[in-house]
Parts: sequence; C-alpha cells; structure tokens
Amino acid sequence: MAVYTDVSFEELGALLSDYELGAPLSFKGIAEGVENSNFYLQTDRGAYILTLYEKRVSEADLPFFLGLLEHLCARGIACPLPVRDRKGAQWCRLNGRPAALLTYLNGLSLRRPDVTHCAEAGAALADLHSAGADFSLRRPNALGVGSWRALADTVAARADSIQPGLRSLILESLDSLETNWPAGLPSGVIHADLFPDNVLFMNARVSGLIDFYFACNDVLAYDLAVMLNAWCFESDGFNITKARALTSAYRKGRPLSEREIEALPTLAAGSALRFLLTRLYDLINHDPMALVRPKDPRDFSKRLRFHRAVKNASAYGIA
Amino acid sequence: MAVYTDVSFEELGALLSDYELGAPLSFKGIAEGVENSNFYLQTDRGAYILTLYEKRVSEADLPFFLGLLEHLCARGIACPLPVRDRKGAQWCRLNGRPAALLTYLNGLSLRRPDVTHCAEAGAALADLHSAGADFSLRRPNALGVGSWRALADTVAARADSIQPGLRSLILESLDSLETNWPAGLPSGVIHADLFPDNVLFMNARVSGLIDFYFACNDVLAYDLAVMLNAWCFESDGFNITKARALTSAYRKGRPLSEREIEALPTLAAGSALRFLLTRLYDLINHDPMALVRPKDPRDFSKRLRFHRAVKNASAYGIA
Repeated sequence: MAVYTDVSFEELGALLSDYELGAPLSFKGIAEGVENSNFYLQTDRGAYILTLYEKRVSEADLPFFLGLLEHLCARGIACPLPVRDRKGAQWCRLNGRPAALLTYLNGLSLRRPDVTHCAEAGAALADLHSAGADFSLRRPNALGVGSWRALADTVAARADSIQPGLRSLILESLDSLETNWPAGLPSGVIHADLFPDNVLFMNARVSGLIDFYFACNDVLAYDLAVMLNAWCFESDGFNITKARALTSAYRKGRPLSEREIEALPTLAAGSALRFLLTRLYDLINHDPMALVRPKDPRDFSKRLRFHRAVKNASAYGIA
Repeated sequence: MAVYTDVSFEELGALLSDYELGAPLSFKGIAEGVENSNFYLQTDRGAYILTLYEKRVSEADLPFFLGLLEHLCARGIACPLPVRDRKGAQWCRLNGRPAALLTYLNGLSLRRPDVTHCAEAGAALADLHSAGADFSLRRPNALGVGSWRALADTVAARADSIQPGLRSLILESLDSLETNWPAGLPSGVIHADLFPDNVLFMNARVSGLIDFYFACNDVLAYDLAVMLNAWCFESDGFNITKARALTSAYRKGRPLSEREIEALPTLAAGSALRFLLTRLYDLINHDPMALVRPKDPRDFSKRLRFHRAVKNASAYGIA
C-alpha cells in the first residue's frame, strides 16, 4: 500500500518518449501492491499502470513474468498486457529500478466475494491454466514445498511469541507435508497468489486477473488449493458452499484426476503453511519505518489446522 | 502518500447507492495527500476522488472547504467539484470518517516547473482570489502569524538538533515578524498551500487547482508569498526570473498596491517560517509507524534566511 520509488512527471515524460502511448493526461501513485511501486497513467490513447520493480522482484524473472502476460493476453485471458517500447523492449530502467508499462484493467476486487464470485474465479483459474499450457519459459516456484524448511527455520524460534503453539504446528505440519507431498501431479504455469485482491470483477463476471509476480511452474491443483484458502474462509470458518462452487467451476474448465482430488487436502495444507510462513517472516522482519503494515499470520494457522483435520476432498464439497 | 482508512468495494457500493454517479468501473487507493485517505473512482459517468478526512481536517471546516470548491467551480475555476448526494449533502460518513466525493481533474503536477509554468500558476492564483471574493463563509488561518509563537515554543528546544543555529533563526525571525507584520492589507480567501503538487497542468496550461484543505481568510498577498517560496527556489538558490514571471502574471489578474509590494519580503519570510515550523513539528513528532515520510524542514530555513536578507520586492523581480 505504498509508493517506494517516486517518479516525477518530468521523469515520466522522458520515459514516454520511448513509447507510442500518446500524451499523458493524468499520473498518480497508487496504493497497492506490497511488492512494487505502481502508478496510474492515463494518456489520450488509454489507461496504463507503470510498475517499478522493487527488491522482491528480480529483473532476471521479468522475461518470464512479462512474457507470460503477453502470452496469456494473446490467448484471451484478461490480464495486463506489457506495452513494448518503440524498440520492442518489454521493460526499461527508471530511477534505478526495472520498470514496465502495462495496460490498465477496469474492474473491482472484492473484499467479501460470494458463492457466484467463487465460481467465476474458479472458472477463470481453469482458463488460465489452459492458456498457460504452451508457454515456453519456465520459472521454478521459489515459495514451493522445497523452500518451506528454510523459512520455518528462520521463524520457528519466534513463532510462539506470535501465537502459542504455532512453533509445533509449523514443524509438525512441515514434517508431514514433506513426507506426503504428492509427486507426479499435472504441472504447468500457476498464478500462485490468486487472492480476491488479484481478481477484478465487473457485473459479477471476472474482468481481469492481476499481479502475476509469484507466477511459476508448479502443480496445477496447488493453485486451486491456494484459492480454497484465499476465497472460502470466512470469519467464522470454512464455507463449503463456496468451495463447491469454486472447485466445480474449475473442473468444468479443467477436469481434476482422481490423484489430484486425493491430494487436495495436502496441497491445501501446504498452501496454508506457505502463507503462514511468509506472513510470519514479514511480521518478524518488519521494518517499522516501512510503508506497509504486515498481514496477520494467524488467519493461516487456523486454515492450516482445518486442512490437517480434513479426511478427504469431500470436505471441500467435491463428491 | 498513503491510505490510512481502507474502503472495500462493498462499502463503496453502499455509499454509491446514495449518489447519482452510475456504476463503478474501477476503484483504487491513491498515494497522495498527506492529510487524508484518497481513492480514485471511475464510474460509467466519469472519474471521481473519494476522500476520507483524517484527523487533521475537522468536520466543522467541511462546509467552508466544500462550499468554497462549489463556489469556485461555479465561477469557472478548475478545481474539484464536491458531488452532492441525492439528498443534497456534500459529505457523509464512511468507516468512521467524514467523506466526500469530488470530481477528478485531469492534468499533471510538475516537480520542476519552468518560467512559463510559474507565470501560468501566478495567473491562476489571481483568478482564484477574484473568484473567492464573494464567498460568504469565513475560516481564520489556523496557521497564520498568530499561531507561530505557540508552534515555535514546541519545537525550539529540538531545533538545533535538526540544524545548528535553527533555534535562534526561528526565535529572531519570529520576534521581527510579529513586530513588523503588516496590518490592513487586502484580505480574502487564500489557498495557503499552492505548491507545484497542487497545480495540475495540461500542455503547459493550468488545468486544475487541488487540495484546498488549508484554504482560509487571510492577506491575499500572503498567498503570493507562499508561491514565491514554493515555486521559485531551486537547488542552487532563488530564481528571480521565475519570481518575476509569477508576480507579473499575478499582477495582470489582480494588481498589487504599493503597500502589498512593500510587505512582500515580510510576507515571504513569514510564509517560509510557517512551513519551517510545521515541517519541524512533523519531523519531531513523527510516528515511525506512520505511512508518511516527513519532509525536510531545512529547505525552508534557507528560504527564510534569503527573505530576511532581502531589502525590498525588487529581489523578487518587481520593479
């Protein structure tokens, strides 16, 4: 919720001379994206987002992220399209940061999506997985199952000070997940962070998917497990009706195999652990001078406990 | 540069049902305004800013601020127009804060305005003063000359730790300004904070004046003195060419009397002291958890010293 690197209109003007975007009409820092600095730009040709990539996004990953967006747009997925400059480059450098201009998508992200929204979002995830199938670049999941042990080691000692019992929950879950993590499930390009913040709606239909900066190659059903965590929990617990709507709509677009369905509780527990660990890390390492408030990790300890108690995918409304 | 109070799309939807603004297309927190939380809202009828007034803006002042904007718009000044709800109210309450919807103005604020921009902005200030002349509400200047002694008392003890010599600069300037502050100059509605941030340009012409939340009744020439401080200093000192352009353009719209011209160095020193004191106060009382970085007060100690050394208004390019 902040702009980390400032961009003046004069700096913008110099940048725009390299693009065919027309004359600027409006330019404002926007308070979203915990990772990057984002600016809303309106020109006489359209609306765009200027993103300056801060330390969490490596320049070496930009061919994957920006190439993927271009690939997906070409296959009809409503996501931001990186605008190439006159020389064909997808990004440049601005104020010491890699920077890209992307098309701006209309639509509104929901704080409390209802059952219909969950179904729409599930269908959009299946479309995304299909459209990504023939993308040629690869990026391993830097926050996949193989990364959790090291993350847990750095936060375990402080975990009980955040919430009593958290340390043992993390270490026991991790042991179990590392042992039981499913191998050989269908893989491909996943979004890996498709929370309601990152799905735009217009008139109850998905109008855009945004923030692909965790996208990577991993198990496709893991992406659905992320959405079970992100879309189906309410303040008073898990909403199975939402989960049924989400997974049914997904399966219409991309059928799940028996093995994927069986693995879902493990994948969902893993996804809950991933967000628990990164939020704990961010909270413990929070710089009080930073412009972002850390998110509460405890939402995900509750979700992790839920998935660990689940017997099979029928708990998610899957017959 | 932050959103202090969050507004969900669902909360926005409930709010919009009280207005005739059409269906929302886009809604995003924007990173500007150190005082308030601001959101960009696009609907099928146009673009708007939703402002939630945080603690520095008193609800009791909203009839003045919002009434003034409506008054100025009706007289052709390009400033945000508060949108009245179906019942005619100019503001409401949202998430515990007073909140208003205002029209969004296109245009870009400049970091390094040139001489032509200074002339345009000076002319805009004269237009603003003329248009405000028959506004019926009144608001005293809470940061006028009468307020500086109390502010100085709270920051003087710490001032030398920010910059050696600052304490005596402040106290000596204050003694001199209180003694020599001009009485009986033409007064009216002033913007009181017309920095380049608050002036939007399109194709080198002023397209909008924004952020009227320091507007008040005070000496008109003081507003011009604020602009001498805000528009005419560069990293290597005062630019008299800019000052000449600014003041000449202003005087074409609203001639200055002999007494106003004589008073200008005193008014400019007072304005520099006002920003020096409030920036010092904000720096000394800065909450490290706050989402805003305090501005450097030392820019204004330099400007204050400059104006104190000035013999007469010819230093500003006024013949």
